[in-house]
Amino acid sequence: MTGNPRLIRIDPHDNVAVVATDGGLAAGQEIDGLVLTENVPQGHKVALTTLEKGEPVVRYGVVIGHAARPIPAGSWINEANLNMPPPPVLSELAPPLGTETDITPLEGYTFQGYRNRDGSVGTRNILAITNTVQCVSGVVGHAVDRIRREMLPRFANVDDVVALDHTYGCGVAIEAPGAAIPVRTLHNIARNPNFAGSTMVVSLGCEKLQPARLFPEIFQAPAAPGSRDGGAASLVTLQDETHVGFEAMISSILQSAEQHLTTLNTRQRETCPASDLVVGLQCGGSDAFSGVTANPALGIAADLIVRAGGTVMFSEVTEVRDGIDRLVARAATPAIARDLIREMAWYDDYLEMGLTDRSANTSPGNKKGGLSNIVEKAMGSISKSGSMPISGVVPAGERATKNGLLFAATPASDFICGTLQLAAGMNVHVFTTGRGTPYGLSEVPVIKIVTRTDLARRWHDLVDIDAGRIISAGDTLESMGMEIFKKILAVAGGEKTSAERLGLCNQLALFNPGPVT
Amino acid sequence: MTGNPRLIRIDPHDNVAVVATDGGLAAGQEIDGLVLTENVPQGHKVALTTLEKGEPVVRYGVVIGHAARPIPAGSWINEANLNMPPPPVLSELAPPLGTETDITPLEGYTFQGYRNRDGSVGTRNILAITNTVQCVSGVVGHAVDRIRREMLPRFANVDDVVALDHTYGCGVAIEAPGAAIPVRTLHNIARNPNFAGSTMVVSLGCEKLQPARLFPEIFQAPAAPGSRDGGAASLVTLQDETHVGFEAMISSILQSAEQHLTTLNTRQRETCPASDLVVGLQCGGSDAFSGVTANPALGIAADLIVRAGGTVMFSEVTEVRDGIDRLVARAATPAIARDLIREMAWYDDYLEMGLTDRSANTSPGNKKGGLSNIVEKAMGSISKSGSMPISGVVPAGERATKNGLLFAATPASDFICGTLQLAAGMNVHVFTTGRGTPYGLSEVPVIKIVTRTDLARRWHDLVDIDAGRIISAGDTLESMGMEIFKKILAVAGGEKTSAERLGLCNQLALFNPGPVT
Repeated sequence: MTGNPRLIRIDPHDNVAVVATDGGLAAGQEIDGLVLTENVPQGHKVALTTLEKGEPVVRYGVVIGHAARPIPAGSWINEANLNMPPPPVLSELAPPLGTETDITPLEGYTFQGYRNRDGSVGTRNILAITNTVQCVSGVVGHAVDRIRREMLPRFANVDDVVALDHTYGCGVAIEAPGAAIPVRTLHNIARNPNFAGSTMVVSLGCEKLQPARLFPEIFQAPAAPGSRDGGAASLVTLQDETHVGFEAMISSILQSAEQHLTTLNTRQRETCPASDLVVGLQCGGSDAFSGVTANPALGIAADLIVRAGGTVMFSEVTEVRDGIDRLVARAATPAIARDLIREMAWYDDYLEMGLTDRSANTSPGNKKGGLSNIVEKAMGSISKSGSMPISGVVPAGERATKNGLLFAATPASDFICGTLQLAAGMNVHVFTTGRGTPYGLSEVPVIKIVTRTDLARRWHDLVDIDAGRIISAGDTLESMGMEIFKKILAVAGGEKTSAERLGLCNQLALFNPGPVT
Repeated sequence: MTGNPRLIRIDPHDNVAVVATDGGLAAGQEIDGLVLTENVPQGHKVALTTLEKGEPVVRYGVVIGHAARPIPAGSWINEANLNMPPPPVLSELAPPLGTETDITPLEGYTFQGYRNRDGSVGTRNILAITNTVQCVSGVVGHAVDRIRREMLPRFANVDDVVALDHTYGCGVAIEAPGAAIPVRTLHNIARNPNFAGSTMVVSLGCEKLQPARLFPEIFQAPAAPGSRDGGAASLVTLQDETHVGFEAMISSILQSAEQHLTTLNTRQRETCPASDLVVGLQCGGSDAFSGVTANPALGIAADLIVRAGGTVMFSEVTEVRDGIDRLVARAATPAIARDLIREMAWYDDYLEMGLTDRSANTSPGNKKGGLSNIVEKAMGSISKSGSMPISGVVPAGERATKNGLLFAATPASDFICGTLQLAAGMNVHVFTTGRGTPYGLSEVPVIKIVTRTDLARRWHDLVDIDAGRIISAGDTLESMGMEIFKKILAVAGGEKTSAERLGLCNQLALFNPGPVT
């Protein structure tokens, strides 16, 4: 893949190739001995051989579907002439053996981070204020504006103050089995390394998600009167009788913030090994180049981080479901293989209960970008996980507790996935996109990598890395992987991302499989 | 109920009464011939007679439970000694007959509103910008800040610019049956009378919730290039190729906003009859006084609005489920009775699928406030619907199309209920609370009514009406009902609410019973 190829074939077994040319290819064009029978847009697949009806269509060396009708060589293959195969049957997966991979250690890479008392390392120095319930959101929003305007300039070492706003906390079936996920998610987001174990808590008072339920280790008893320190966190309860009038509430929050900012302001960056990275990987607005440029390059960066002893999380259950056989084969132990299968089975059931399946994943933009179905999308998505053994599975909302390559089980929704990776403890987020999205988070820096150079040109100030150079400029996957790895270290050490420079951030979005009331 | 009663009995059949005294009553106190056997907090129930195990406990003339053990007269009745009865069996409800109530018309009440072309009337003049997907939220937020700062001062007649932000739009099973509710909710919120049919639309481009799916009546085809007017709405698509760099996106939004603001600025308030009111009723953070003061007074206001020809919506399925027999008896026609039963049955199934039931509704604060279970809470909640016939049922996310008293079927979550009532077309929101909540919306003014005078004193600048005066100052329910009705007219005409003065607002929260992907 050097120069400016017009057709890209990934695996020698593939009987399709993807059009790389800007603007696509026209009917009648001859290319690599093939004559196109129709116009094929950029990113879309061309049949390299004539296919009979029912014959497998192979990309990434994987059957991504079967010809719905006879397809002459040089034809455009898309969702209209491609039948999707069923997903791997979980109960029929080969018994997991565990892998024995020699991991060559990678040493000497460091970044400047904020070391926390629990050993985790922050990449930003942020005062976080979590609400136990949406009711207090307006008051907290007002307080955050004032803290930002009136107080933050006095604390030069603190990057920001962020409200961990959400719509959970009351009006939900908090004893239903599904509630465990949003509750532990909120608990663990507040413990993200970027907040230094110093998250403030604002409660209403009468809500279902009482502070003692959200942080049992801090608030043993129901909310005590007034604003008080509860170990590392502090609590302001708006319904407390000491609060007479709105300004009294704001004043309680501001007083608490002053103490927290004073402490946070003493934090200093120090040299930390790359093994302190906890990098969450995600893709959104994917196209057919996601699996050609950005994702495999990110996979190489993931391998480097794992070799350096760090933590990498990949996610998005519906985007790996069709490749679960490949993931199970990479599980470091049989127990991890079983964990992977358990998460897939849970999600299969969850989707079935909602009368849908994993094919609901693909978006109009995915298809426009050349991804015919979820199988093809999954193969591209998985490639960002690199090649290392999978050394753990993090259930939705839980915090990662070990290093290496982890599967953090999350929905593929960008916002829910990002929110759950925050809970899992990520300190850098890497996001690949083919169609383009201005995604960002307030809590953790988000590095955005695009799959195509023309998008990188148009969105020059919205994205961070152009992986399209693998096609447009002949960069190798290896050099791009190393560039991404170094960018992650630089951003972890304080270099601002495009989203940070523009101040772009998205809402947190909880995964709540339980009912609202 | 004049003077300062210490025990309040609602119905002559009740065998419990509620302690009204601030601070509660102490063991040994004699009151109305009864000696208290233990301390009973304010808002909690005292047994007026000795109850055998299994004997019904009656409040509001309704069985709210059965004694879990023998309860001597003068004892505190709470969730520990009260067994909850099952809800009315939907299939056993008496066949609905339809009611024949003579409604005495109420004439001569008006407010100053903004008349829209479709006949609806706005109470505020707001530029709304809806996103089709959360991806664009950061960009829209940036644009809204700039519009507010740089443009709004030039358009003195426009009250505000509001982003209709939400986490739906992609990463969801948009073809699953459950998706219909969030999609139509977003469609109808954009049509709220306060936005004058002039809502702007910002799309990413590749999302599942394409503009043409969200507004089929405006955008017949997939998003066309650039920013363009589509009838009443206008569309900016961030992925459009004309957008080179972030500022180009912002500039597209600002240009469109300038046109919309120019049009909105010509709107003038005019005298509208009270029949143009569309009032959404809700309670949140309820206590035992909710059903004694604020809610029944609001019920009287609701009757006045209905008599004046206006529209009143009450909601919150789990808070009316236990009184469905009473609501069915008030249905104006048999078809409306069947609609009510259908909504209850749907929600029963929804909760059962999540392995819970309507008892998941009550919060710790409800119980602390004296509400022992959902049956007792429901009776207080229903009282805000007044006494008029129910003339329609609005399914979740749909827009109300007739006047009179409507049941808008929504979850009881304050934020979801408010969001769905916005979609139903409310132009004033009235919210009662016993425990206190700083609830507010950006889209529609929210009048907050509290149940107790001590809360009104503490939260003096956060609430609008003290219905506790029914106990503390001997106001009648009738005079309080008329006061609320007049307040609704004044606020509809432009008088600012407490939440508006403080700038307090909460997030929109969609009801999405379908799965995320």
